[in-house]
Amino acid sequence: MFAQTPEPPYYAVIFTNQRTAGDNDYGDTSERMMALAKSQPGYLGVESVRGADGVGITVSYWASEDAITGWRQHAEHSLAREQGRKRWYGQFHVRVAKVERAYGMAPREISDESNKSERP
Amino acid sequence: MFAQTPEPPYYAVIFTNQRTAGDNDYGDTSERMMALAKSQPGYLGVESVRGADGVGITVSYWASEDAITGWRQHAEHSLAREQGRKRWYGQFHVRVAKVERAYGMAPREISDESNKSERP
Repeated sequence: MFAQTPEPPYYAVIFTNQRTAGDNDYGDTSERMMALAKSQPGYLGVESVRGADGVGITVSYWASEDAITGWRQHAEHSLAREQGRKRWYGQFHVRVAKVERAYGMAPREISDESNKSERP
Repeated sequence: MFAQTPEPPYYAVIFTNQRTAGDNDYGDTSERMMALAKSQPGYLGVESVRGADGVGITVSYWASEDAITGWRQHAEHSLAREQGRKRWYGQFHVRVAKVERAYGMAPREISDESNKSERP
């Protein structure tokens, strides 16, 4: 689920949204858009979570503003966004932001090796 | 759930994380941190979602980099972050980004008024 992004600077598109009730082809289109985005020039990764209440946050990462514009102008993506406005989302917000710094904690290693070391 | 942010530019802190199993005081501290953040100078809002698999995305919005630094240096928040590293998160990523543009779709109005207009 975690995006493996390069050293900043790069861009993030923060998409916060509330789903309407019912699927209405959302699931299939969403999967298709995720796959299609991956094939776009300048795509760096995506992180996406939806809570039980239908509120979701999807953050996609891009190498440049041009890459974001390119994806935005993709014909199939444009049609999907139109469906989003009409059917899938009760409300949404999009924020385009330039990532200036990043840090984190890598996955904890609870490896076989460390388990072994506690056993005589 | 949706943050009411001003016109850009402003800053976003994108925190993506994976919770460990068990609460370990996470719930109480998380609530306390949300309340405390709200009282910080330059705080603009927060949006937070966690999925059933324990993956979460929290985006907090701030007026300036100084506001982010101030919150980061808050003593109680520093202690909470230490607990986060030790106990609550299996992994996490923090990205600090400058929001350059924003747009969205306001909540759909399914008001009494519009219902009335369809009734004779």
